[in-house]
Amino acid sequence: MNDTFLKACRGEEVPYTPIWIMRQAGRYLPEYRAVRGKSDFLTMCKTPELAAEVTLQPIDILNVDAAIMFSDILIPCEAMGQGLEFHEGKGPLLSPAIRDEETVNKLFVPDPEDTMKFVMDTIRLLRKELADKVPVIGFAGAPLTTATYMIEGGTSKNFLNTKRMIFENPSLYKTLMDKITATITEYLRAQISAGAQAVQIFDTWGGIFSPTDFREHVLPYVKRIIDELKRWMSTEMSEPVPIIYFVGETAGLLEEIKTSGADAFGVDWRINLDDAITRLGSDVIVQGNLDPLSMFLPQDKIEERVKDVLSRASSARGHIFNLGHGVVPQTPPENVVALVEMVHRLSRKTG
Amino acid sequence: MNDTFLKACRGEEVPYTPIWIMRQAGRYLPEYRAVRGKSDFLTMCKTPELAAEVTLQPIDILNVDAAIMFSDILIPCEAMGQGLEFHEGKGPLLSPAIRDEETVNKLFVPDPEDTMKFVMDTIRLLRKELADKVPVIGFAGAPLTTATYMIEGGTSKNFLNTKRMIFENPSLYKTLMDKITATITEYLRAQISAGAQAVQIFDTWGGIFSPTDFREHVLPYVKRIIDELKRWMSTEMSEPVPIIYFVGETAGLLEEIKTSGADAFGVDWRINLDDAITRLGSDVIVQGNLDPLSMFLPQDKIEERVKDVLSRASSARGHIFNLGHGVVPQTPPENVVALVEMVHRLSRKTG
Repeated sequence: MNDTFLKACRGEEVPYTPIWIMRQAGRYLPEYRAVRGKSDFLTMCKTPELAAEVTLQPIDILNVDAAIMFSDILIPCEAMGQGLEFHEGKGPLLSPAIRDEETVNKLFVPDPEDTMKFVMDTIRLLRKELADKVPVIGFAGAPLTTATYMIEGGTSKNFLNTKRMIFENPSLYKTLMDKITATITEYLRAQISAGAQAVQIFDTWGGIFSPTDFREHVLPYVKRIIDELKRWMSTEMSEPVPIIYFVGETAGLLEEIKTSGADAFGVDWRINLDDAITRLGSDVIVQGNLDPLSMFLPQDKIEERVKDVLSRASSARGHIFNLGHGVVPQTPPENVVALVEMVHRLSRKTG
Repeated sequence: MNDTFLKACRGEEVPYTPIWIMRQAGRYLPEYRAVRGKSDFLTMCKTPELAAEVTLQPIDILNVDAAIMFSDILIPCEAMGQGLEFHEGKGPLLSPAIRDEETVNKLFVPDPEDTMKFVMDTIRLLRKELADKVPVIGFAGAPLTTATYMIEGGTSKNFLNTKRMIFENPSLYKTLMDKITATITEYLRAQISAGAQAVQIFDTWGGIFSPTDFREHVLPYVKRIIDELKRWMSTEMSEPVPIIYFVGETAGLLEEIKTSGADAFGVDWRINLDDAITRLGSDVIVQGNLDPLSMFLPQDKIEERVKDVLSRASSARGHIFNLGHGVVPQTPPENVVALVEMVHRLSRKTG
């Protein structure tokens, strides 16, 4: 078994720096587009055979060290009772937008093995098909990031409605966040029970806040999930699965993020990784952090960037290589293949 | 004359912390909407009487310490030869998108007193009408931020085309940036000649880069503008006007931004101001940094935030209060009025 990724998550010695890539199962791969051409996006998410198929594609094509299940962070929104649609070329559409007591009260905390069983089935299928070749990463959106989609009804430019709820009606926001947090906790617990060997909590929009607001309105809910999962894992499992917390636009928030209780921290590309490590503390495991768009550089320039990130990462207790955000659809796949090879080659300990 | 703002820009002693607000002349004010109801946005920019009228509105309504001329950072794009349109409820539309040698070569470096004379006329009118009541701030977009609009043809989510040009065709990017930089330099020189008493360079999208790319592809052009303006001012003026450099999502880039040569640095809300000052160095003048959306808080909570920012700013050589980005159209104007009063009252040196 290639357990380099899990060892790095735990801060153990590894022969080379493991790498996986956010959205590695995605539209930049012709093999993905072939599957996607026959099914719409939500059908792919909800059909374990299809979800598993595209999850496995990058394992062979890229030679990455972990398989992140193919799914979407908005799946729990639908399970909570909100309408969810994806339309070609547009962002997701969630309806009704959750902005008042009535719509918040109608949401429920679902049993994940009931309404989101297809996700757990995907994980079970992946574990079987991978047969321990590489570990399976499960994931969920963080409560705040999930809430932004539910409140805005989709993507947003300045998150006006989300921040207005927080600032104008904090008790309504708290009620909503309590429901989302309970949902995500059970969802991740179900993923781990189904066989996920690590989980990542995506807080893509966590970075829209001042440190004060992040500490008050974002972090407590993430902490609650991590605390509960860790408490549960300590009684149920011989070895708890690592929890990675990824926040977009982390640079001003690292001191806060550190207190989340996660085992590893995803860092975006807007800060030098050594600076991030200094502020997180050198006892941490970091994940990142090349600009996804740097995949358009010529390969010799990509190699310079890889060397730079590896060198800056050396002060951390552990490092998992990744992009600072998801790979974009227009990316030349051959550059991603080359990236994985470079990370493995340049980080390999010899002698 | 209320020269508190200019004194703070120069690091001189001030009786209280001056404040102005990005987009203080804007849609959140009913008085602005009354003028805007009769003219489209570009006509307002191009009619000195209208631009001056809305520039002056917040001076009396808010009691701010500086008047920023009403205009748009995309005015120079049109002057360089690109089509510019604003459509209600959408972002700006620039055409054709500048993405190849042909479109770059067609752009020219305009004489600002010819193609953008209305801006200078607005400044001259403002100086006359204000009669030194408060200083007039001129502004321009930074070269990179201007380039993103020109290359993307408008706003963008991940700046794919801009970064692709930088990473795939750096010499074309450099040609484009050289033209933009020359245009912005002459434009700001003309604004200062027309009477602007300070200028702000807006690098709203500077923060989309890694520190490495920011240093290589963003900063040199800003430095060139600042160096040229300072060299020119030192020979032409007894007292050079202060140059403020504002970058969006600054948190990972402060060490780079510091080297720009600007007199003051705009900081967004995603970092605590004391942390920003530590990283910029305590010899700096900072401007900022409340989240614009915090204007939806109840006024007692806004007051807590104001106290916090003022306290965190105390380690800098100088502080100009501002929001971390433009005030949004939905903002209750009475909260902005209250904000200005709070900043003045809470920062006033007594005894």
